[in-house]
Amino acid sequence: MKNLFIILLLSVFQSIYAQEVQSPSKDITLKVTLNDTGEPLYSVFYKGKEVIKPSKLGIQLKSGISLSRDFKVIDSKQNSIDENWTPVLGEQASIRNRYNELHIQLKQNQTNKLLNISFRVFNEGVAFRYEFPFEDKVNYFIISDENTEFNLTGNHKSFWIPGDFDSQEYVYNETKLSEIDNSKLDLNNGIALKSIESKYRIQSPLMMKSSDGLYINIFEAAVNNYPVMHLDLNPKTFQLTSCLVPNAIGDKAYLRTPSVTPWRTIMVSDDARDIVASKMILNLNEPNKIDDTSWIKPMKYMGIWWEMHVGISTWDYAGSQNAQNVSTQDLIPSGKHGATTENTKRYIDFAAKHGFDGVLVEGWNVGWEDWFGNWKEDVFDFITPYPDFNIEEVYKYAKSKGVKMIMHHETSGSVANYERHLDRAINLMKHYEYPAVKSGYVGRIIPRGEFHDGQTMVNHYNFVAQRMADNKLMLNSHESTRPTGYHRTYPNYIAAEAARGNEFNAWSTGNPPAHETILPFTRLLGGPMDYTPGIFEIKMSAYDPNKTEQVHTTLAKQLALYVTMYSPLQMAADLPQNYEKHLDAFQFIKDVPADWQASIYLEAEPGDYITVARKDKNSENWFLGAITDENARTTEIKFNFLSPNKKYKATIYQDGKDADWKNNPKSYSIVSKTISNKTKLKLNLVAGGGTAMSIVPID
Amino acid sequence: MKNLFIILLLSVFQSIYAQEVQSPSKDITLKVTLNDTGEPLYSVFYKGKEVIKPSKLGIQLKSGISLSRDFKVIDSKQNSIDENWTPVLGEQASIRNRYNELHIQLKQNQTNKLLNISFRVFNEGVAFRYEFPFEDKVNYFIISDENTEFNLTGNHKSFWIPGDFDSQEYVYNETKLSEIDNSKLDLNNGIALKSIESKYRIQSPLMMKSSDGLYINIFEAAVNNYPVMHLDLNPKTFQLTSCLVPNAIGDKAYLRTPSVTPWRTIMVSDDARDIVASKMILNLNEPNKIDDTSWIKPMKYMGIWWEMHVGISTWDYAGSQNAQNVSTQDLIPSGKHGATTENTKRYIDFAAKHGFDGVLVEGWNVGWEDWFGNWKEDVFDFITPYPDFNIEEVYKYAKSKGVKMIMHHETSGSVANYERHLDRAINLMKHYEYPAVKSGYVGRIIPRGEFHDGQTMVNHYNFVAQRMADNKLMLNSHESTRPTGYHRTYPNYIAAEAARGNEFNAWSTGNPPAHETILPFTRLLGGPMDYTPGIFEIKMSAYDPNKTEQVHTTLAKQLALYVTMYSPLQMAADLPQNYEKHLDAFQFIKDVPADWQASIYLEAEPGDYITVARKDKNSENWFLGAITDENARTTEIKFNFLSPNKKYKATIYQDGKDADWKNNPKSYSIVSKTISNKTKLKLNLVAGGGTAMSIVPID
Repeated sequence: MKNLFIILLLSVFQSIYAQEVQSPSKDITLKVTLNDTGEPLYSVFYKGKEVIKPSKLGIQLKSGISLSRDFKVIDSKQNSIDENWTPVLGEQASIRNRYNELHIQLKQNQTNKLLNISFRVFNEGVAFRYEFPFEDKVNYFIISDENTEFNLTGNHKSFWIPGDFDSQEYVYNETKLSEIDNSKLDLNNGIALKSIESKYRIQSPLMMKSSDGLYINIFEAAVNNYPVMHLDLNPKTFQLTSCLVPNAIGDKAYLRTPSVTPWRTIMVSDDARDIVASKMILNLNEPNKIDDTSWIKPMKYMGIWWEMHVGISTWDYAGSQNAQNVSTQDLIPSGKHGATTENTKRYIDFAAKHGFDGVLVEGWNVGWEDWFGNWKEDVFDFITPYPDFNIEEVYKYAKSKGVKMIMHHETSGSVANYERHLDRAINLMKHYEYPAVKSGYVGRIIPRGEFHDGQTMVNHYNFVAQRMADNKLMLNSHESTRPTGYHRTYPNYIAAEAARGNEFNAWSTGNPPAHETILPFTRLLGGPMDYTPGIFEIKMSAYDPNKTEQVHTTLAKQLALYVTMYSPLQMAADLPQNYEKHLDAFQFIKDVPADWQASIYLEAEPGDYITVARKDKNSENWFLGAITDENARTTEIKFNFLSPNKKYKATIYQDGKDADWKNNPKSYSIVSKTISNKTKLKLNLVAGGGTAMSIVPID
Repeated sequence: MKNLFIILLLSVFQSIYAQEVQSPSKDITLKVTLNDTGEPLYSVFYKGKEVIKPSKLGIQLKSGISLSRDFKVIDSKQNSIDENWTPVLGEQASIRNRYNELHIQLKQNQTNKLLNISFRVFNEGVAFRYEFPFEDKVNYFIISDENTEFNLTGNHKSFWIPGDFDSQEYVYNETKLSEIDNSKLDLNNGIALKSIESKYRIQSPLMMKSSDGLYINIFEAAVNNYPVMHLDLNPKTFQLTSCLVPNAIGDKAYLRTPSVTPWRTIMVSDDARDIVASKMILNLNEPNKIDDTSWIKPMKYMGIWWEMHVGISTWDYAGSQNAQNVSTQDLIPSGKHGATTENTKRYIDFAAKHGFDGVLVEGWNVGWEDWFGNWKEDVFDFITPYPDFNIEEVYKYAKSKGVKMIMHHETSGSVANYERHLDRAINLMKHYEYPAVKSGYVGRIIPRGEFHDGQTMVNHYNFVAQRMADNKLMLNSHESTRPTGYHRTYPNYIAAEAARGNEFNAWSTGNPPAHETILPFTRLLGGPMDYTPGIFEIKMSAYDPNKTEQVHTTLAKQLALYVTMYSPLQMAADLPQNYEKHLDAFQFIKDVPADWQASIYLEAEPGDYITVARKDKNSENWFLGAITDENARTTEIKFNFLSPNKKYKATIYQDGKDADWKNNPKSYSIVSKTISNKTKLKLNLVAGGGTAMSIVPID
């Protein structure tokens, strides 16, 4: 290894500084150098193979100063960390944070400006960030560009979505890097607002697989007071360059010293399971800032929501969805409004009967007649219910049934309006004892000129999380920027959507069967997703014979998603009447917990399949989820993760033999088996199918 | 007149529509035509003289449609209005609203788009606005330009300030129109933030005087949900064109149908007093929207404020004014902090002793160590006092003395931050029974890219006024956009700064003696100004022998300003210790009310002098203020406005014979006279001087 390093040094550039850091496992090596023009570079190796070729690091300031060259190293330190911490909610009860770090202090010769770069090498990959140390005369500065390179070594297979500044709700494309081209995408995909400015711009997390079997993931962690980083690809050289999302006037970030950028991460392994199991992103975030976390709890919920997606009812009271400027008292009710007191009570009854924690009601508040697509500022006030939603009565009824109500704050992208009303909205929640809120950001952002992924909006989402925490409220944001582990710091930020959710199956081209096998390698690396699984009435023709849309999975796979898609907030998204028809399958949704003692990824291949076993945080019960893409799959699972000398009853929810996602998605069977840690079981997953399993000790 | 009109029609353009409307007095004639290309035009005549030559009207939409030609008139109506209304606070107890109106409905031939224009002709001038009637398919639209012309007839003398999108705090320039040129201004004028984008762009209200003695004023009224209108001048043709202040992405206004623009106003008279006495701007605003106005009261106040301007104390606790990112608990107090509990009590004592309603305390809250000039977002939280300001103790002490505390909310231009905190800030005010707040907007606006005068900020100021009204709180905004009569609609918005206030005299080139003779013709037309008069210690050398700054008036003129500068909120701005030295002169400030039964402008000439008599709303007392510019002035006042058969004691606060603003500003004399409505009195005003008078009936 050392020889290789020396050769590199001599052949590629003359360096004035060179350091290397290995992962605790020694599988990963990070090399950091300063070349003879004072440019900092890094490269990454995995088991001796180059993963990231020498890549430049730098920041361009709006003042004109380029913090990318002419540096000298004034200090360089290495350190090793190995610690454990306890997440409030999570895939596992304890998380190990173990890495070797290199911290270098740079000074620019001509300007005397300081820039530190901090590197951390975990067993799963490398992270680094820029740090701006305290400078008396450089309190405030504006970043006009970040010039971080990720120089890939080959034309890897990649799972990518376009670098849209306003949306991540795309189907993943699985192509070679050289085939990435946004201009060739079919954008008739159900996404209302798109802001794609470049053919070769893609989003992170970017999951890749090299021809020699390495799984590589480029992402970021701890995005706070900084815009989201997208990636600009050179499809010929496979160079990726950071692209920060601009604000209304083209600036990227406003900072002052001392401050830091988010971590840029490169995960790498020859075993895909290491990527999905990694806690590196979480570990790179700041520890929990909430003193009393006793009120932060996992939630399984139902809601008045899917019935609007399938067209049974509407969010708005008048059913018009056009901007007539009619005041609420003059609206003529359409009779299709979903969020009525009566309908809410029906959901509360069902939730209470089946042991769900909460009921979400969307469309409860006035404003939905004129909420969408018009860049309107004063959309909702977040406190005024429709005439047919008696919030007081609903509150008392839910309380009498032991069910919590979940608030809904759709902002329509009008964030200025939301912030103006937030305290009053929170007061209403506290008054009626709502423990959690689902927020939404469908539409162009106000302040106008801002994008969903810019610094302003990143700060907004985090501000709302903090305000909710101040008031002991949990937050689940939709159409927000994709999370990067900030829920470690504010664990009340229990989930987000921020990717293409199950709802797209109801009214668009939908989510192909591979979709849920990719999300754990991309979106879920940053945090829990409110994917809203559990759709039993798979085909929309059940609601309207003219409809051809459908969920692109089997019913059994919908169950398996409760295990494969980690979230402490899980919705049973379908309608009560659909669950009534399949109460045997529904039992799994009732049984599966949303907070875990341990998680074991048994199998994983992005775009193909994933199998995970999880142990309930509060019992000895295990749950297993296995899903496949559009291809049928047979696999044998070893249950050696179970406690020895113990017998378990496994209830297996599996695809019917005649099932497939397209033609016969609702065929399933439920079988029981007694198993132990010696058991091997063959699972048969049909095309677009899955298996869910509950494993309960037999005493 | 009719002949002239026919000649015009034949000679200037072929018109397809022509209407004229006269003022109730018949002195003013408005002519409105559509020429043969369907362009709407208007012109204005005063006593037969042309004041505004045929000028185009039009709106450019972002969609590409130009609402400026190809119109036909589909309806045209005239109407006459004569009504009275009662302002909550004002220069007079009742206001007459009398005008003749023309309302035309236009339809664009090619697009079928509708545009209405409403014209009103008052005795003091003409107003018109664009109206966008309800259209089912045109709910939302974006205005990218307004093309309103004001084609002046000659090279008038004008009182102008540059068309700065962020500030109106300029000294007025008195030049011919042809001499207007922002690039020739000395901008070393104490204004921190300037956004001047064009040489020939100036602000409204624009006061002019023609060579044949007409006083002409171009302004606007009822600016709400629309940007401020500046004026672009062609210095050769004397054409003025509307310039709307853009938002962060260059758009001007987001509207939906039905909606209206602000009124564009042209006041004209051959008597300057008609301009300053006009209530046309107020009349053009919507009536009061606050049901219970019993809590809206005039206020005379003192404050911990001038002592910071003169350098005795500081707003910030540490006295550093630099951004060390030190948290408040680590700050080392400088000992110069003004807003201490002890100092506040001193002001409360003085205010209570002399019968003032309120005490303002600036610098009471944390954040002032790092508040200015850095475009910082999280500046203040508006609720956390400095360690040496015991808000509870101050509250109790003030209450025991019968003095109200006035809150201070400096936003530093970070409006997003202010709106986020506004409800909590209001809660604090309610908790400690503050009846009013002074807000401030010193600095570049956040949301970044917005200007002080854009639609976003106009809506912000009005939103804050509404929120304060919801909570029965009065508002006085500084560095906000200049008012346009919105205090008729929200009378709790009792005052604003929004022009160059007295404070500039403390630390800049200051306000020349003519300044206060121009403001009533410009800034004050839109609403009351918190000018903060009453400075007795005129020269800053009293505080520091090296200082050469001074107030550019005599002491007597400072008294006269309480009458000439109408505001229901009046500050006695100087320090208690300075008033103690001149308690005889201070008596006038104690006596003068801030709400009036009647106001009579006895003399007025912009840039030269103004004399006004006002009758107290709650007594038979009269008060008179007379001021002059840099020239000494002798005038004879007839008191025929007094009640007949009554005797009055006039207490006259006049310049000392040896006084002048520059060399001997503090020389004054106080004389008493018995007067009646037959009395004529000669007033002698020295250079930069003035006379104040209280006139009390002798029973």
